[in-house]
Amino acid sequence: MEKSPEEVHPLKAFGWAARDTSALLSPFKFSRRETGDKDVKLKILYCGICHTDLHQLKNEWGFSKYPMVPGHEIVGEVTKVGNKVEKFKLGDKVGVGCLVGSCRSLFKSLNMGGRNSHQRQISNKNCSNDLENYCSKGIATYCATYHDGTPTYGGYSDMIVVDEHFVVRVPKNMPLAAAAPLLCVGITTYSPLRYFGLDKPGLHIVVVGLGGLGHVGVKFAKALGLKVTVISTSQNKQKEALEHLGADSFLISTDPDQLQAAMGTMDGILDTVAANHPVLPLIGLLKTNGKLIMLGAVAKSLELPVFPLLMGRKLVAGSGIGGMKETQEMIDFAAKHNITADIEVIPMDYVNTAMERLAKADVKYRFVIDVAKTLKADD
Amino acid sequence: MEKSPEEVHPLKAFGWAARDTSALLSPFKFSRRETGDKDVKLKILYCGICHTDLHQLKNEWGFSKYPMVPGHEIVGEVTKVGNKVEKFKLGDKVGVGCLVGSCRSLFKSLNMGGRNSHQRQISNKNCSNDLENYCSKGIATYCATYHDGTPTYGGYSDMIVVDEHFVVRVPKNMPLAAAAPLLCVGITTYSPLRYFGLDKPGLHIVVVGLGGLGHVGVKFAKALGLKVTVISTSQNKQKEALEHLGADSFLISTDPDQLQAAMGTMDGILDTVAANHPVLPLIGLLKTNGKLIMLGAVAKSLELPVFPLLMGRKLVAGSGIGGMKETQEMIDFAAKHNITADIEVIPMDYVNTAMERLAKADVKYRFVIDVAKTLKADD
Repeated sequence: MEKSPEEVHPLKAFGWAARDTSALLSPFKFSRRETGDKDVKLKILYCGICHTDLHQLKNEWGFSKYPMVPGHEIVGEVTKVGNKVEKFKLGDKVGVGCLVGSCRSLFKSLNMGGRNSHQRQISNKNCSNDLENYCSKGIATYCATYHDGTPTYGGYSDMIVVDEHFVVRVPKNMPLAAAAPLLCVGITTYSPLRYFGLDKPGLHIVVVGLGGLGHVGVKFAKALGLKVTVISTSQNKQKEALEHLGADSFLISTDPDQLQAAMGTMDGILDTVAANHPVLPLIGLLKTNGKLIMLGAVAKSLELPVFPLLMGRKLVAGSGIGGMKETQEMIDFAAKHNITADIEVIPMDYVNTAMERLAKADVKYRFVIDVAKTLKADD
Repeated sequence: MEKSPEEVHPLKAFGWAARDTSALLSPFKFSRRETGDKDVKLKILYCGICHTDLHQLKNEWGFSKYPMVPGHEIVGEVTKVGNKVEKFKLGDKVGVGCLVGSCRSLFKSLNMGGRNSHQRQISNKNCSNDLENYCSKGIATYCATYHDGTPTYGGYSDMIVVDEHFVVRVPKNMPLAAAAPLLCVGITTYSPLRYFGLDKPGLHIVVVGLGGLGHVGVKFAKALGLKVTVISTSQNKQKEALEHLGADSFLISTDPDQLQAAMGTMDGILDTVAANHPVLPLIGLLKTNGKLIMLGAVAKSLELPVFPLLMGRKLVAGSGIGGMKETQEMIDFAAKHNITADIEVIPMDYVNTAMERLAKADVKYRFVIDVAKTLKADD
């Protein structure tokens, strides 16, 4: 059972929340749990605005809970650590992404039996394989229920308390605001490049869609030594893709001739588009053994003919964020290669306008709220 | 341009052909090319009947050519070898599968330029990677056009002349009739188990459909040390699957409770069903990182929701036969593990009845024509 009172925990917290599907955000007082033995408490400095926030605020996926404090691209400074915290100390700059919990039981409940024993086995195996992101008991940073039965609240707020396992270190040289979105879009693009073997210099991939995910996907792919083609519906992204992001080529999705000329030339595709769109032309772009990786939460089912898969041993897969170990690896890699998100920093009270602009894709490429400087407790 | 006369080549050949989409097979005199420097001529001993033969005879895929001599599961004895043949000698028992040619140009035309240069690059790369089966210039054993412009005719015939590259050695201890179907269903199931890493002892896979492909898929999977669950629409396949083929468990596809209990437990699925069928329940059976491999030429597009892929990094892929090197590896592996197809040997003049029974799935599990003993030139 979820406990509903916002005052159940001892630590006073403050943020902006939506109260219903109007999605309108406004100041909100709530509580956070006391810093436990394995917990890290952090003062939130920046929080990115992910398209997921907008989906959830509007309850577009059907499991939203209100009041909702969104935000899962959090960068902050450690202000307190629990007795048994090993990885962090006061003053560390750290990040929290989409996850704040999972079963983490590392097989120990394998023999518990009962109705849910099978479910536990599945969870355990993911967690013991550093895939907390696929744990069936994973706990999202907001809009979920924590182990203690209380709702989770995200990063549009002054501070957060998180088990250190779900906290990553932000390397010293990184600009903090521009690092924040990497906790979501960074790991979402980095992880499939690694897992699906699309990380070998010289391979040629496509990034479909040049938004939050896409622009970071191009950066990681280039840093890995790949040749990158961007596909967009918008011709005015061409210059940006080629000159600013360093993509090698650009195709307009609405031009069949351009697509035809590129048929059978790609090793892989990161498809970041969340809107419904045809994937058959993308399959056609792939070489033998090519891999189409879906990253966007497309609502409508794909229409996928089988012949084009059979004729070239092609695959269509999905990938969702990444485990904690890999998230740390991602941000360390990003720091080494000077990869951050391209951002527009906004004050807290601009957030409703930002949501309207985000709905129109009017942002290059990510809004980041300057929480520390602009969230006023007396709002 | 394809040359149409059946007498264009010097070697007289004889077989059974269909003349039109009635699919009715009857005796047919035609010609084969002279045995070239790199060619092997073989007396055909046995030829399996693949479901593809039925599709092609009826022009269900839309590119059939008549007269058509079907058959791409050929086992025979070498009766002549060209001057430059290296692998075979007179009397060798050999097999010919679905392919008799491909570009084989091993990158040498990379810089040829012109309109088709790109296409050549793709073909070349597949052939130089031992993936002749995905070469865009691949030549099917029948119903295709050979390099010299003549139509290819398959194994429902007395003899065939094939470039030695597309001939495999049948190991000495193998029963020849039961080995014939392996040239198609053997490589079609063996190759994806290897390529997709579903070949590690202890992994648990599903084989969907217990026909020609499925029953051999179970045998290869068991020989590789996998745990195997068979899913069928027919309860009367249960005993066969468990007792005869050695599967570990059996599920009826029409029982949602049975499927529900197996959710999230499978590492991979070989889906051998060529008829339209829902794949979402199959995706649900997969663990995180699970792989659904489509082997059947399903005509209708799959309806594939993206969320279930994202939530467990699952993939849907296709796979079609295999390259020549792997086909030899497959048949050597099969011989070592005593794997053959379960067959019903028939005389040539039973072939039309066999096609009717095949259309009703009334065969365990493969018809094989005893060509050498029953094809009579005076028919």
